[in-house]
Amino acid sequence: MVRVLYPGSFDPPTSGHVDLVERALNLFEEVTVAVAANAAKQPLFSVEERCDLLAEVLPRDPRLKITSFSGLVVDYCRTGDFGAILRGLRTVSDFEYEYQMALTNRHMDDRVETVFVMPSARYSYVSSSLIKDIVRHGGPVSDFLPEIVEQRIRARMEERAGD
Amino acid sequence: MVRVLYPGSFDPPTSGHVDLVERALNLFEEVTVAVAANAAKQPLFSVEERCDLLAEVLPRDPRLKITSFSGLVVDYCRTGDFGAILRGLRTVSDFEYEYQMALTNRHMDDRVETVFVMPSARYSYVSSSLIKDIVRHGGPVSDFLPEIVEQRIRARMEERAGD
Amino acid sequence: MVRVLYPGSFDPPTSGHVDLVERALNLFEEVTVAVAANAAKQPLFSVEERCDLLAEVLPRDPRLKITSFSGLVVDYCRTGDFGAILRGLRTVSDFEYEYQMALTNRHMDDRVETVFVMPSARYSYVSSSLIKDIVRHGGPVSDFLPEIVEQRIRARMEERAGD
Amino acid sequence: MVRVLYPGSFDPPTSGHVDLVERALNLFEEVTVAVAANAAKQPLFSVEERCDLLAEVLPRDPRLKITSFSGLVVDYCRTGDFGAILRGLRTVSDFEYEYQMALTNRHMDDRVETVFVMPSARYSYVSSSLIKDIVRHGGPVSDFLPEIVEQRIRARMEERAGD
Amino acid sequence: MVRVLYPGSFDPPTSGHVDLVERALNLFEEVTVAVAANAAKQPLFSVEERCDLLAEVLPRDPRLKITSFSGLVVDYCRTGDFGAILRGLRTVSDFEYEYQMALTNRHMDDRVETVFVMPSARYSYVSSSLIKDIVRHGGPVSDFLPEIVEQRIRARMEERAGD
Amino acid sequence: MVRVLYPGSFDPPTSGHVDLVERALNLFEEVTVAVAANAAKQPLFSVEERCDLLAEVLPRDPRLKITSFSGLVVDYCRTGDFGAILRGLRTVSDFEYEYQMALTNRHMDDRVETVFVMPSARYSYVSSSLIKDIVRHGGPVSDFLPEIVEQRIRARMEERAGD
Repeated sequence: MVRVLYPGSFDPPTSGHVDLVERALNLFEEVTVAVAANAAKQPLFSVEERCDLLAEVLPRDPRLKITSFSGLVVDYCRTGDFGAILRGLRTVSDFEYEYQMALTNRHMDDRVETVFVMPSARYSYVSSSLIKDIVRHGGPVSDFLPEIVEQRIRARMEERAGD
Repeated sequence: MVRVLYPGSFDPPTSGHVDLVERALNLFEEVTVAVAANAAKQPLFSVEERCDLLAEVLPRDPRLKITSFSGLVVDYCRTGDFGAILRGLRTVSDFEYEYQMALTNRHMDDRVETVFVMPSARYSYVSSSLIKDIVRHGGPVSDFLPEIVEQRIRARMEERAGD
Repeated sequence: MVRVLYPGSFDPPTSGHVDLVERALNLFEEVTVAVAANAAKQPLFSVEERCDLLAEVLPRDPRLKITSFSGLVVDYCRTGDFGAILRGLRTVSDFEYEYQMALTNRHMDDRVETVFVMPSARYSYVSSSLIKDIVRHGGPVSDFLPEIVEQRIRARMEERAGD
Repeated sequence: MVRVLYPGSFDPPTSGHVDLVERALNLFEEVTVAVAANAAKQPLFSVEERCDLLAEVLPRDPRLKITSFSGLVVDYCRTGDFGAILRGLRTVSDFEYEYQMALTNRHMDDRVETVFVMPSARYSYVSSSLIKDIVRHGGPVSDFLPEIVEQRIRARMEERAGD
Repeated sequence: MVRVLYPGSFDPPTSGHVDLVERALNLFEEVTVAVAANAAKQPLFSVEERCDLLAEVLPRDPRLKITSFSGLVVDYCRTGDFGAILRGLRTVSDFEYEYQMALTNRHMDDRVETVFVMPSARYSYVSSSLIKDIVRHGGPVSDFLPEIVEQRIRARMEERAGD
Repeated sequence: MVRVLYPGSFDPPTSGHVDLVERALNLFEEVTVAVAANAAKQPLFSVEERCDLLAEVLPRDPRLKITSFSGLVVDYCRTGDFGAILRGLRTVSDFEYEYQMALTNRHMDDRVETVFVMPSARYSYVSSSLIKDIVRHGGPVSDFLPEIVEQRIRARMEERAGD
């Protein structure tokens, strides 16, 4: 039984991420969602906050774990004995980037496979940066974000505006 | 445990198909390779011949089955209790076609998920039609085709040329 | 006021076509849907049948006309005094083809502009050939085809199977 | 009669923008060019300067208005009673971004349609950032920029270099 | 000094082909245009006719040769001692196909390099099939076809219509 | 005989760059690799360091020169009497960007042609930014970077971490 890792920045988690995790739980015995602690210069939420948000919005299922990691995904896969990386695919630009990433990861460790699943068509056209932009201007995002995430984004943006 | 169907025309099976099946066996408990009996006006090999070729070139594994089907893939998934369709992804054009197909299949039966895996980079740039074209002109294809398949193609082409 | 021509093969008209015409009627004063009489080696429906189907499924609106034409679209635009060609855009492959077509038409007659509108996201992933394939195998297409069109396709396919 | 909004950053307005506005005036009764006041960290020109430049380079036509806005485009469409957003399309990357944007806007307000027109082929390959780069190095841009805009860019760059 | 082969079907030669050959003669010492004798089920012109047309429309230059070949391009390169294959690139779809072809050819013979050049922007949007379609309907093609080619196409189409 | 310029940022030079230069030396009499001194806000290596690294990893060949330049590529081509710009092509996104660049350069100076060559398939999926990211986390890059470059990157990153 292969252990599956779903890495990402999840800043913030969206309804598209929730959708993908639900699909993954129908396909695999065990799924671990892992927040990448590197990268992103100015995240909206800290790694811990993102883990907490994921815990609130993802289904409660003993087969689902939430964690964080830093460094290379393939290194984390090796230490955690994950045999597959899960990623969502929506657009041609996604595809080219993910394709390069998957082949690079395979090159670094050929025991780690990358598996792609498509999120629901109703989340296919909304990117995270677009969502943050809409929230910033008070636009409607309830179809794209779990309610709790939407509230936290608004609170966070108000805090920052008050700085 | 999800049962996985890998449908295709496999006319003929290539080293890329073999590679993808080996990857799938690392990811899933049980994989069924299914030759699509519809379509393709003038196949090089009959459905039975393609099943026989697959049996010769795929790994011998009790978790791997080979069969054929006609009609819609989602209907076959339902009757065979398959929860996932496996497909390979190589190019942007592949991606757009497979994306439309996956969303259409999901629309027809939302219990059937499509899962994508990338074949080895060394098979990423050779299409089936290109391979047949190379064989026809006596070019080298041993890196892209199992030896037995190459022999059968040459034999078949000679038969036809003799008609 | 610009007169708008929406040319296509409409073999058969789909819910995506109906959606696009409704959008066009919100944008322009007058829209003419024109069945292209050239092309397509083995159409499912004759040009007359396609015009009749369009008349049945499109909204009844004095601002909407249905006709057919043969020859180059730009020539038909000139004789009918159309200043704009309407086309739907869904995928990257669509885009490249339509882009070449629009620039070629503009080159032939620079008074004719091409205008693009996107059909509803729920029709974005289903092509006409995919729909015909699903109907052929008895799959569900009621979300993609007006009911009357679905019935006519089934009837037509039965006639042909009986030949 | 639908009122059309052509939103953008126009930093600076190019000959491609002028071309698109001229095409739009052939298609629609009334066109409003609107400079987006958000975004762009370090614009070359202020919103007011961009409006002034547009007023100088666009055709004088009572059916053409120039304005600025902040916030979401769909919100501005609602307050200004615009029924259509106009955008230019040139490349596959343009297309994917504009497609996501158009479907997101439609989701937020389905009374606002997005309409795409292709600029002249002779402007199809030059992006704004490329133009600014060429001006910076004293290269020839008179085919891509109205003369007055070219002069203002050079003046602005000299001011900044002098800071 | 590398010898360069420009293979293609040239059915018929277009102004885009002529443009590419002129560019190639600025880059390389010697260029051979080679009509592929395989393929194309129903060519408009025979291989000999295409060679004759090329001879009429290409520049007279001792460094330019015109020939035909059958079989694999790499085999022909080997026998003729060509070290490079020249191809034009215009669209994303072109690119994906040519990329696969170039890597396949390199795999078969790594001494043969493929070199890409872009034809003039004014030929970038017109494909051969589009041109034939325009000629068939009496549309203007003088910007895309040398005059002699246009005359021969019309003559050929009239012959066929008379059959 | 055309003189060929291969411009780029080369920050750092990769095995893909070395591969492309070797291919270019098989195609052209003389090749000049030119480090672009503009751009890139925070380069890893200075222009001089990059020239030195190139000198260490590129083949020693009297037909190969290494230099740097600032300003527009076409201006540098004119002063150095270069008739062709060499660029590598790997992905669809590469292609769109390079296509725009090549047509813009041709517009500015139509005596300068852009020639594209594909690097070895084994370098096709790894971008410079991906490589830097892997080095940063101690991952294996010896297949993508000459050894000396890898050492210098690690040294440089340690220096910076120590700041």
